[in-house]
Amino acid sequence: MALRSDDVSPAATLAERYSRARAASLALVRTLETEDYVVQSMPSTSPTKWHLAHTTWFFERFILGPYLPDFKVFDDRYHFLFNSYYYTQGTMHARDRRGLLTRPTVDEIVAYRNHVDEHINRLLIDGSGNGVDYLVTLGINHEQQHQELMLTDIKHVLSCNPLQPALIDTDFQRRGAPLPNLDYAYYPGGLTNTGAESAGFCFDNETPRHAVHLEPFRLGDRLISNGEYREFIDDAGYRQSSLWLADGWAWVNEQRIDRPLYWSSDLSAQFTLAGTRDIDLSAPITHISFYEADAFARWAEARLPREAEWELAASQVSIEGNFVENGSWHPQPLDDAVPERPAQMFGDVWEWTASAYSPYPGFRPLEGSIGEYNGKFMCNQLVCRGGSCATPHDHIRATYRNFFYPQDRWQFFGLRLARDV
Amino acid sequence: MALRSDDVSPAATLAERYSRARAASLALVRTLETEDYVVQSMPSTSPTKWHLAHTTWFFERFILGPYLPDFKVFDDRYHFLFNSYYYTQGTMHARDRRGLLTRPTVDEIVAYRNHVDEHINRLLIDGSGNGVDYLVTLGINHEQQHQELMLTDIKHVLSCNPLQPALIDTDFQRRGAPLPNLDYAYYPGGLTNTGAESAGFCFDNETPRHAVHLEPFRLGDRLISNGEYREFIDDAGYRQSSLWLADGWAWVNEQRIDRPLYWSSDLSAQFTLAGTRDIDLSAPITHISFYEADAFARWAEARLPREAEWELAASQVSIEGNFVENGSWHPQPLDDAVPERPAQMFGDVWEWTASAYSPYPGFRPLEGSIGEYNGKFMCNQLVCRGGSCATPHDHIRATYRNFFYPQDRWQFFGLRLARDV
Amino acid sequence: MALRSDDVSPAATLAERYSRARAASLALVRTLETEDYVVQSMPSTSPTKWHLAHTTWFFERFILGPYLPDFKVFDDRYHFLFNSYYYTQGTMHARDRRGLLTRPTVDEIVAYRNHVDEHINRLLIDGSGNGVDYLVTLGINHEQQHQELMLTDIKHVLSCNPLQPALIDTDFQRRGAPLPNLDYAYYPGGLTNTGAESAGFCFDNETPRHAVHLEPFRLGDRLISNGEYREFIDDAGYRQSSLWLADGWAWVNEQRIDRPLYWSSDLSAQFTLAGTRDIDLSAPITHISFYEADAFARWAEARLPREAEWELAASQVSIEGNFVENGSWHPQPLDDAVPERPAQMFGDVWEWTASAYSPYPGFRPLEGSIGEYNGKFMCNQLVCRGGSCATPHDHIRATYRNFFYPQDRWQFFGLRLARDV
Amino acid sequence: MALRSDDVSPAATLAERYSRARAASLALVRTLETEDYVVQSMPSTSPTKWHLAHTTWFFERFILGPYLPDFKVFDDRYHFLFNSYYYTQGTMHARDRRGLLTRPTVDEIVAYRNHVDEHINRLLIDGSGNGVDYLVTLGINHEQQHQELMLTDIKHVLSCNPLQPALIDTDFQRRGAPLPNLDYAYYPGGLTNTGAESAGFCFDNETPRHAVHLEPFRLGDRLISNGEYREFIDDAGYRQSSLWLADGWAWVNEQRIDRPLYWSSDLSAQFTLAGTRDIDLSAPITHISFYEADAFARWAEARLPREAEWELAASQVSIEGNFVENGSWHPQPLDDAVPERPAQMFGDVWEWTASAYSPYPGFRPLEGSIGEYNGKFMCNQLVCRGGSCATPHDHIRATYRNFFYPQDRWQFFGLRLARDV
Repeated sequence: MALRSDDVSPAATLAERYSRARAASLALVRTLETEDYVVQSMPSTSPTKWHLAHTTWFFERFILGPYLPDFKVFDDRYHFLFNSYYYTQGTMHARDRRGLLTRPTVDEIVAYRNHVDEHINRLLIDGSGNGVDYLVTLGINHEQQHQELMLTDIKHVLSCNPLQPALIDTDFQRRGAPLPNLDYAYYPGGLTNTGAESAGFCFDNETPRHAVHLEPFRLGDRLISNGEYREFIDDAGYRQSSLWLADGWAWVNEQRIDRPLYWSSDLSAQFTLAGTRDIDLSAPITHISFYEADAFARWAEARLPREAEWELAASQVSIEGNFVENGSWHPQPLDDAVPERPAQMFGDVWEWTASAYSPYPGFRPLEGSIGEYNGKFMCNQLVCRGGSCATPHDHIRATYRNFFYPQDRWQFFGLRLARDV
Repeated sequence: MALRSDDVSPAATLAERYSRARAASLALVRTLETEDYVVQSMPSTSPTKWHLAHTTWFFERFILGPYLPDFKVFDDRYHFLFNSYYYTQGTMHARDRRGLLTRPTVDEIVAYRNHVDEHINRLLIDGSGNGVDYLVTLGINHEQQHQELMLTDIKHVLSCNPLQPALIDTDFQRRGAPLPNLDYAYYPGGLTNTGAESAGFCFDNETPRHAVHLEPFRLGDRLISNGEYREFIDDAGYRQSSLWLADGWAWVNEQRIDRPLYWSSDLSAQFTLAGTRDIDLSAPITHISFYEADAFARWAEARLPREAEWELAASQVSIEGNFVENGSWHPQPLDDAVPERPAQMFGDVWEWTASAYSPYPGFRPLEGSIGEYNGKFMCNQLVCRGGSCATPHDHIRATYRNFFYPQDRWQFFGLRLARDV
Repeated sequence: MALRSDDVSPAATLAERYSRARAASLALVRTLETEDYVVQSMPSTSPTKWHLAHTTWFFERFILGPYLPDFKVFDDRYHFLFNSYYYTQGTMHARDRRGLLTRPTVDEIVAYRNHVDEHINRLLIDGSGNGVDYLVTLGINHEQQHQELMLTDIKHVLSCNPLQPALIDTDFQRRGAPLPNLDYAYYPGGLTNTGAESAGFCFDNETPRHAVHLEPFRLGDRLISNGEYREFIDDAGYRQSSLWLADGWAWVNEQRIDRPLYWSSDLSAQFTLAGTRDIDLSAPITHISFYEADAFARWAEARLPREAEWELAASQVSIEGNFVENGSWHPQPLDDAVPERPAQMFGDVWEWTASAYSPYPGFRPLEGSIGEYNGKFMCNQLVCRGGSCATPHDHIRATYRNFFYPQDRWQFFGLRLARDV
Repeated sequence: MALRSDDVSPAATLAERYSRARAASLALVRTLETEDYVVQSMPSTSPTKWHLAHTTWFFERFILGPYLPDFKVFDDRYHFLFNSYYYTQGTMHARDRRGLLTRPTVDEIVAYRNHVDEHINRLLIDGSGNGVDYLVTLGINHEQQHQELMLTDIKHVLSCNPLQPALIDTDFQRRGAPLPNLDYAYYPGGLTNTGAESAGFCFDNETPRHAVHLEPFRLGDRLISNGEYREFIDDAGYRQSSLWLADGWAWVNEQRIDRPLYWSSDLSAQFTLAGTRDIDLSAPITHISFYEADAFARWAEARLPREAEWELAASQVSIEGNFVENGSWHPQPLDDAVPERPAQMFGDVWEWTASAYSPYPGFRPLEGSIGEYNGKFMCNQLVCRGGSCATPHDHIRATYRNFFYPQDRWQFFGLRLARDV
């Protein structure tokens, strides 16, 4: 990727940040063929061109429409096509039918992006006021979320093709030495604060900062590796009901699950954005569901961390790791040169926590339609933490709460163990 | 019901308790026709005769087999038929096919019950030791849970019949005066303990007792009534997306939900175990899903209580209310003669909380197969509190955690509001 | 069965025929437990008690209502419950929900039968006229069709039960000698008439009698046996795509079909109305779909007969065979004492033909609602001929056209081969 | 379309015919955007690029592989991707997942076409022998069938898009005068021959020519129009159960069908390959299922013709009509300048017949894998006759049997009435 978002200096203007984020979206998928932009491989993924249009619609609908006088929408039919789930904005095209839309073409969507970019820039240059600044910042963060989704969604599309095409051609890092034994960091618990401070951008679901009481706990000092997960499989982990939550056991049996998503049936190779590659046993396990992460933890006589535990630990380390700017777009083995422990807290894989995605005490969603962004999903999902190899570096923070259904696997999901003391 | 379980004096022996619980199961359904015992109306319900056999299997399998020397199982084919979900005990008959079993007949199942009762009694009379005593107590509580399920399941079966047959013929209590305005009790929060103490029987999921930090909150001093819920409907509550969780909105639209389960389309009548009856606007709303309870709360500019909040309040009131022994098997209007506030904390309806059903910090399931009782369901479900009009009085307590999926409606579910301060 | 319908002398009055047909229905299922009457095991089967009520409704609705002055319906709610598919009579209870009806009870349905029988008898004794006589005769034939369905439906219900209960206890006939080699009878074809003459009762779908031109053909002189079908299985018949129709191949793979319905996985035993029994290799194959019959024929380098071919041959033999009155309720091995060839044309199994169920040239359905009896099903089904071991002897004839979907297996279906010359 | 296949003179060499057929496929879709080639809108349609690749595979697999020495396949992975349903050729990519394949790209498929064309041409120039000539002719006819499917499939894809994009920009012909009243031609019936003579190319399913006996009948002298179908709708045709086959009635209710496919809800406009257009009441009705055609006929107190009846009449008129070369790609109103009656027997719409698609007496499929072409579909489908506005002129003939499922609507289906005398 030509444009590293962490090139953006703290002093960058909002207009600069906007331009770089928008350019980054196109840069990520520049190696795709036109045909690749069209397909939706399952209801929870979207076509690449839909992502490119939807993020544009977000800026057009929530900023240009209300705030730029005399703005004319690019094509008023796009409102129906590219609204994702903002019900208060009206009806929308069905989510599971996004892959039926051959038009607008990729070129037309690029023109749409240019049109909106030009007007946002004009708005920002003219000086815009706090309300607009906040919304543009929100839109940039929204754009970044869809950058990650473009990578995970196109990975799923390409994986469905027996030809197994690659998005990129890259060499993955290799460890010389074996992984160090998994160790646990001790935390005394007690009354602690969790959630985002008021300073700096955050999503509404990270607020308000509030007190929680934690029992003493221990947290694994690195991610679980493919090699460790392989031991679980070899020990018949997928066939012992006692290791699984009831819903997970039903899922394993109904879907005939016996290995992580993208692993070959002989457990030797996996599909990556660089095509099919040998499995590196020292790299972090990824593309597992919550059910699998939870079963692995039970097998290991441990448990998944609660989100407040994870956040406490994460707030004490630096936000470094294998992010999208790294260009590998795949979790990488632990780098011994990084001294900090727990390691791999940020980047590589989203870490499943044991915590249901619920509102924090006193939580209030944003006013208006953008209040539909986070709050209405606070049911049936689990919190994931830490970002992944497909997350922009400046997008993540210790208080960041991502959320997915327990059977989801197409994101770069992985796990870290925790233990009671 | 001839036999009130609260007739059981504290001094009753375990054998007495056992006999009374077992007799109560049969007494609940004595007005049924043989045909009624057979049918399964949806995958999450079970035929009445299956319940009667399954609870018997529980005693046979977990107590008589291991602890009564020379015990011979009644029919070794029943193990496959009447194991519910104890996977570590082997494979079992598919849950959604229980209604295909015309045999064993009701008479054969009564004979099975008698056989097991006779041997459990012999075991208890001979003196059994703590392990057996605990398991028999667990089995009695298990029997009581299925007593409640028999009532809710047969209610669903009977409701599917255009003839709308009744299980009982009873008169419901009527309020003379209008309901008092809903008021809120104030709780200062802070660090508090939640979960069961070691003394007395409880399920493993109520333990360990542990500290939680609560923000100050207010709790509604009575249940939400049919009349209040009717205002929500009349205000287009089912058609405003902004009131609903995303998954709830999808559910409402896909299932075309526009009123509580068992309500007539003109909103004037509801199916009860006493047949179709006019809706009493002062009685508690019931047979609503979590999604509906949550949407109502948002409409009312309030929220559902968290389970620790509910438990704190419940631990300060007496365990009185409209339980199964009352014989109405339907929620009843607030009785002004009961002075305690918050009122209606126990009985009437299971109150949906905002809390996902998760393990308490330090939770450990019981050892062996009975460890499958509670822990493995700690995903995708919500906690309900307080028992219902179908719950035996001596079965419920302030720390009791029941759990259901957010779309479930066939139990006597209702709601109480809470508010931040 | 105590009452043989072929005891009915030709001189029997219509009232006598009516009474015997009605009594026969109850006699067939007299060994059932009450619980057995309730269950519906799949959408295309019905509960036994539903059959008993529906045939009664047919007499009440189409005869007593219009023709008996001052007749009062037994229970006007039954019209909705027991109408099967006569849409012109109004809406009806959903077919796939018949098994949810625990009420009316079996006893209530017997009372319903008695009520209707009493009034039909009164109508017939008073003298009724041609219109009524025809309708009563139609109703008797309808009753007989449901007698067969009661046996095939309860067989399916009982087969779903791991306890494998039996309806009857009977000994099946055994062949001493091996089966004679399959031989073919030659028919020169040419212009021939097919369909029912006007004399005697027949269904509308057998009319009008009309000319068809047939090429010369040969017809197998007996049914295909279990032994022959076993050779097909052993020759990988279920795994060779080239033997199957495309829709059949999809069905085999999606449903994972590898043997006839009711056969054990080791191919040694089969479920019968007398419980699980060893497979008699010399008995006719049964419970196969059209797809399986067609694939077998292709494997045998033959084909299924067209219905006009079958009818031509059948019109030249006597109507003798293994019918419901025989009491075995299972296909029996060829009896060498029967000299006629082709043998086994009637009784034992319904023979799949190659003919789609279509209207004969000039076909007109009956007037009014009873016109819904046959004509509206003339799409997507195949014609079966000859009756089965569950068919009443006096119900069948050479021109009789039964019809089922190609994947159906729960009837006593079998096959006979034909060949071009 | 630049290249009219009827420009091909009878004296054209096979190589010329091949080249023109292949070029015609690309010419039909030349106005598409790259994105349009990728999408599969329902399981029974295929992406445009899949059609272009599959017909190429047919030539490569069945001709070049066996007959051109030293031929190297273009890409051996294409065999799995582009085999449609030739099971005897090995496993294949799942039909309903064709839309997931973003690769090979359109350009790669065009290169594949060029590679195969070059080698077929070499084979034909070198002189090839009868076997190859037959297979190339079969392949050309196969190519033509997929030309029609490309048009009907892309029509469905484009119709799913709220933007309603058009494939072509064309003006439809308009009638000045009202349609003449529907009249019937009389045919005396009797013994007649049906099916293809040996001379000239035909598909195996048209053979052998054989005798059938027909009753006297009358056949409508033109197609049913939109105006006549509109009367059926206005007369509540979709809401009268007595007009429908049972399976059709279930389909209408489950799918909520109340008008032809592609009609707007106000019945004023319809989607065409030229975009959304006003409905011309004098043009033939199209995009109706067999169920709708059959219900219309019953409403009109007529019936659908049997295929032998249709063929008898068609064999007496010239093969002229509105074919794909006409370029309108939509049924056109009756042209009074055409004197022949019955009119519109060829082109415009495939006419649903009353005949199930069954083998003719003595039918034998072709040897080998190409025997999978027609015979294995002879179940559950109905015969359609006469070709449509998307059929190449030289592809159709009086004996041609097309076949579809009764609920299919995406082809240009229409109807003509018949009557008994």
